[in-house]
Amino acid sequence: MSIRARLCGRLSILAVLLVAALATSGGAARADEGMWTFDDFPASKVGAAYGFTPNQAWLDKVRLASVRLAFGCSGSFVSPDGLVMTNHHCAQGCISQLSTGGNDYNRDGFYAASLAEERRCPAFEINQLLSIDDVTARIKSAEGGLAPGEANAARKAEIARITKACDPALRCDVVTLYNGGQYKLYTYRAFRDVHLVWAPEFDIAFFGGDPDNFSFPRFDLDITLVRVYDGDKPARTPNFFGWNPAGPKDGELTFVSGNPGRTERLATVAELQYARDVALPYAVRSGSDLDGYLVRYAAESPEHAKQALDSIFGNENGLKLNIGRQAALLTPALFAGKAKQEADFRAALAADPAKQAKYGKAWDDIAQAEQRRDDGTFFKDGALARGSTLLGYAQTLVRAAEERPKPNEKRLPEFSDARLRTLQLTLFSTAPIYPEFEQARLTWSLLKLRQNLTADDPFVHLVLGQRSPEELAASIATSKLTDPAVRRALWDGGQSAIDASTDPAIVLMRTVEPVARATRKTFETDVEAPLAAGEELIGEARFAVYGTSVYPDATFTARLSYGSVKGYAERGHGVAPFTDFAGLFERATGRAPFALPQSWLNARNALNPKTRMNFVTTNDIIGGNSGSPVIDKDARIVGLIFDGNLQSLGGDYFYDGTANRAVAVDSAAISEALRVVYHDTRLLKELGQ
Amino acid sequence: MSIRARLCGRLSILAVLLVAALATSGGAARADEGMWTFDDFPASKVGAAYGFTPNQAWLDKVRLASVRLAFGCSGSFVSPDGLVMTNHHCAQGCISQLSTGGNDYNRDGFYAASLAEERRCPAFEINQLLSIDDVTARIKSAEGGLAPGEANAARKAEIARITKACDPALRCDVVTLYNGGQYKLYTYRAFRDVHLVWAPEFDIAFFGGDPDNFSFPRFDLDITLVRVYDGDKPARTPNFFGWNPAGPKDGELTFVSGNPGRTERLATVAELQYARDVALPYAVRSGSDLDGYLVRYAAESPEHAKQALDSIFGNENGLKLNIGRQAALLTPALFAGKAKQEADFRAALAADPAKQAKYGKAWDDIAQAEQRRDDGTFFKDGALARGSTLLGYAQTLVRAAEERPKPNEKRLPEFSDARLRTLQLTLFSTAPIYPEFEQARLTWSLLKLRQNLTADDPFVHLVLGQRSPEELAASIATSKLTDPAVRRALWDGGQSAIDASTDPAIVLMRTVEPVARATRKTFETDVEAPLAAGEELIGEARFAVYGTSVYPDATFTARLSYGSVKGYAERGHGVAPFTDFAGLFERATGRAPFALPQSWLNARNALNPKTRMNFVTTNDIIGGNSGSPVIDKDARIVGLIFDGNLQSLGGDYFYDGTANRAVAVDSAAISEALRVVYHDTRLLKELGQ
Repeated sequence: MSIRARLCGRLSILAVLLVAALATSGGAARADEGMWTFDDFPASKVGAAYGFTPNQAWLDKVRLASVRLAFGCSGSFVSPDGLVMTNHHCAQGCISQLSTGGNDYNRDGFYAASLAEERRCPAFEINQLLSIDDVTARIKSAEGGLAPGEANAARKAEIARITKACDPALRCDVVTLYNGGQYKLYTYRAFRDVHLVWAPEFDIAFFGGDPDNFSFPRFDLDITLVRVYDGDKPARTPNFFGWNPAGPKDGELTFVSGNPGRTERLATVAELQYARDVALPYAVRSGSDLDGYLVRYAAESPEHAKQALDSIFGNENGLKLNIGRQAALLTPALFAGKAKQEADFRAALAADPAKQAKYGKAWDDIAQAEQRRDDGTFFKDGALARGSTLLGYAQTLVRAAEERPKPNEKRLPEFSDARLRTLQLTLFSTAPIYPEFEQARLTWSLLKLRQNLTADDPFVHLVLGQRSPEELAASIATSKLTDPAVRRALWDGGQSAIDASTDPAIVLMRTVEPVARATRKTFETDVEAPLAAGEELIGEARFAVYGTSVYPDATFTARLSYGSVKGYAERGHGVAPFTDFAGLFERATGRAPFALPQSWLNARNALNPKTRMNFVTTNDIIGGNSGSPVIDKDARIVGLIFDGNLQSLGGDYFYDGTANRAVAVDSAAISEALRVVYHDTRLLKELGQ
Repeated sequence: MSIRARLCGRLSILAVLLVAALATSGGAARADEGMWTFDDFPASKVGAAYGFTPNQAWLDKVRLASVRLAFGCSGSFVSPDGLVMTNHHCAQGCISQLSTGGNDYNRDGFYAASLAEERRCPAFEINQLLSIDDVTARIKSAEGGLAPGEANAARKAEIARITKACDPALRCDVVTLYNGGQYKLYTYRAFRDVHLVWAPEFDIAFFGGDPDNFSFPRFDLDITLVRVYDGDKPARTPNFFGWNPAGPKDGELTFVSGNPGRTERLATVAELQYARDVALPYAVRSGSDLDGYLVRYAAESPEHAKQALDSIFGNENGLKLNIGRQAALLTPALFAGKAKQEADFRAALAADPAKQAKYGKAWDDIAQAEQRRDDGTFFKDGALARGSTLLGYAQTLVRAAEERPKPNEKRLPEFSDARLRTLQLTLFSTAPIYPEFEQARLTWSLLKLRQNLTADDPFVHLVLGQRSPEELAASIATSKLTDPAVRRALWDGGQSAIDASTDPAIVLMRTVEPVARATRKTFETDVEAPLAAGEELIGEARFAVYGTSVYPDATFTARLSYGSVKGYAERGHGVAPFTDFAGLFERATGRAPFALPQSWLNARNALNPKTRMNFVTTNDIIGGNSGSPVIDKDARIVGLIFDGNLQSLGGDYFYDGTANRAVAVDSAAISEALRVVYHDTRLLKELGQ
């Protein structure tokens, strides 16, 4: 599962709107721009703009009440007893995995009437950020004077050493900020026992579905509550957000605390060109192809629809993100602006001979590294494991057998001691695997592998031999790795167990492993290392010039953004910042994805039609922020981020305050839905209502 | 059905190869570039380069022995009795349409052992170009002094008048050359009674399938023979090509006579930008999505595979063409070259005040027209009819009822008298329609309609009402327009029959017709007319400067190209110009698409392994050239064009002789296959063997 955020689909007009946004923003103030780290938050700037200056205690509280969902989302503590609020689409994996034995909690929703009814998610990890420490000097010292390839290895080894030294009960990650201008050690409390508490029906969580993605007004109750446990009891979480059941007012100052996944606002023109000209065209084509395939698969039967639900959602999600990135980079005015920024920065450095000597060649080094990319890399190391849960498990087991006996700092980073617990959480998950779906999905992947590498490629011969993609996929679907006990036995058995296995998934991944490893090694040496070296130089240069007055690119770590509730203009008409329940019922046609669940139809007369449902703010967010709390200056929940509007899709590369909007569920809608639609008292009481 | 050419799929390396091609071609001679008209063929240039100068008699003979397949391909007469050679993939529609009652001629091939066994294709038209006349003066006079919108209408009316004045037994088209620098009247003999004679099995015609597309070496027998009839007898065709069973030699001069569909080598930078930034990203995304959907549909059952075969082929074909176009335009060096060409041309004009006054603003007018494009146009006028055979028929019938009573020159061009016979050929075709496939295909189209326009668009409301895409598609699939007699009755019944119809397809297209018409009208006024006016100005300017020393962009009309058999270099290794039967058998794995039909397995020992199968030449071709004869200087067939290599995919925009190659079936392979694999004597005798 990758970084998630619903970043959506009305693409035929996207380019038009992006151009329009650029044309109107011009030199406009970008007051609300920025995904700031908690240790360099521009509090006084907020104070000047909005009359409220967060102090350190406020910032600490907000950081500790916020959480990261380790597999790609954000959330918040909303009670002292470990209750966590996030998006329905962020917990959807758990909801699906618990839907066995005739249950379908996506369709029907889930509500635990008591603690005892809360159900453990098979693979879920929640991280609470306890501290941030600067380790830049240690990393730079380890890298000192080495060539890019060696520096790359030295950095990884030093990171493995630093994280290994952490308290094993905690989770430690070294985070690269400013593209290597800073390295920080983030220490988390990690909760791996997470229970599902409440999820509304998919039809209201994702009302409007794919057609409504990208658009505002929206009418979604995209929320799920889970609870973190500690030793069979709800964990104590004294840092939590209070609940403001009134929601925010128009114009009100709002903060969003979350984990934006990735931005490329500091990328060089060469990097953007590669993304625009090669990587994104492929990604969009591939995601579109898979979308068509899965949508048809789901149409074949209700069982297929259930099997494919998460994959369709995840793929459409990533696809839309990539479509948005592509459209942004294909906006000539935007690209020209990026080129000018870079030229100006380089000219400024060139004016200082010392700086020029130190930093000047970094851009060219990066451009050359981009030229050395081999598009076969993805297919030879990654595509098989990504195209099939079974092959993904098999690859992990095959690699683990080789990696685990090595010293910590010599391992591939994902097998370092600091990451093993998270890895095992996924590997031994009891989530169901559907062989029929695996077979179909893998057939598609193998067809694309052959199409992209061509039938003449030695790797294709190695994978397929004389078999057709269909035949090989059918064979893999008989793998016994569906059983977590079988996976555990292979994990515990180590290299000899892997060598002796006749499981078709293990056999295949064992066969391709030497090529996959060699491919990865070549990529790391020829591309990753010089890119990292070049980016680090530029990061240093930028950091030397601007310090922390600019924010680092997003890295799926804790960030705080500020902004306000604000409508915007689109194609000449105004878009109001709020929607309400009345609008929801007007929009419902009775046909999916505009069909309301029966619970809502039953409750219609009891609901206040004027209750606000969704709203937009100027907060600067991106994929990974899904599930982030929207809080007021008193650090009370007023909303729940679940999407960005169409115009936010250029957010990977730039922020435009005139039209870039975050989309959130209003806390008023959550309160009223719990009370009126779901007849809840238990959770409302826990929320202090 | 659109212009066809198999222009293929190894896309992850396409950009790399295009860049490499550009880098190496630099200032290299482009001796073989050009898709020349028969009335302005550079014969002396060929003579200088190759020592053979075609004379007028030679050119006339070649023109008259060549044919166009009206629905999008090329072909040639290969006997005096109307025998026509083209590609299997060009006749595949007919082959599928005749595959009823348990027959599957795609799977099993088709061979008529006698004239009596030749079977009529339900909808097939073949055009033989009899004459070319210049009508530029008439068109310019009709347009004279009018504003773009009025000039556009005046031109269309004048074209309707010119074509109406033709002998009704003939087919007359006014062709726009040099973007409006010239207008020519092309007069054709039109054959609409076409019979299938011989088609090999799909598995050998398209051996290697989609994975091998884009690559050379190839091993395909992509041929079909059909015969044109005249009054129940084979038509007399005294102009035909002789047969050279030896095939061509390495380095030998080759001509390709055919109908390249479309190039944009004269397009302005603004037009290329729109294609690169908006149109192609959408087209590639949409084609990829449909590909995934159809591939999964086909995997559901052999019956589904049969129903979807033509649609998959056609869609993958168009998709690959668009992927190639996109990759070419995303090659920065190429785009910069185009920009420089334009800047140079404009600077040259600007140096002459009279020329600047007359032509200078054309580029800006075009750029402004591109900005006025509304991406909803495609969905409101076109998408429904393209997404469903039934809705396509319904739209034709609804429009015909309104158009046919009007005077010829006031009608929409596709209903002008000169085009009605071709239109009726399609409308009254007895080709089978599969309601189950129609329903699936239309469901996809309606989902995309809603996704792209959004659920809030009034047009989406008009189409769907409260229905889901699935429900509406199921309703349309019950239409009685599957029956040609029902379509004929509605055609004959005119407006009152349309008004009275309760057929769901007619009802839907009748409902949307006012919006579709208004959308089209707006597009014609705001975009098409100013584009045409601007392009015409530029065409005139270019024509004034260069005359016919340059060739016009392709327009799916007769063109002649010259070149030679020649290998090329790819990623540092040499690609030989020929493949042979031995290579075919080596490549066969027994699994589709690398499975050989039984007839070939049986014949293996009797075939000469050294017989050449496919070859490449430097001829400048593009989509629409599929089925073109490759001839030697004695105007004898030495091959049959069926594809272009990977590097030819930039051909829409430029020609690079170092690596751009046409791919053909060798005449030697055809002769030997007929004799040894298919045990034919009848056709070989007719070919003079």
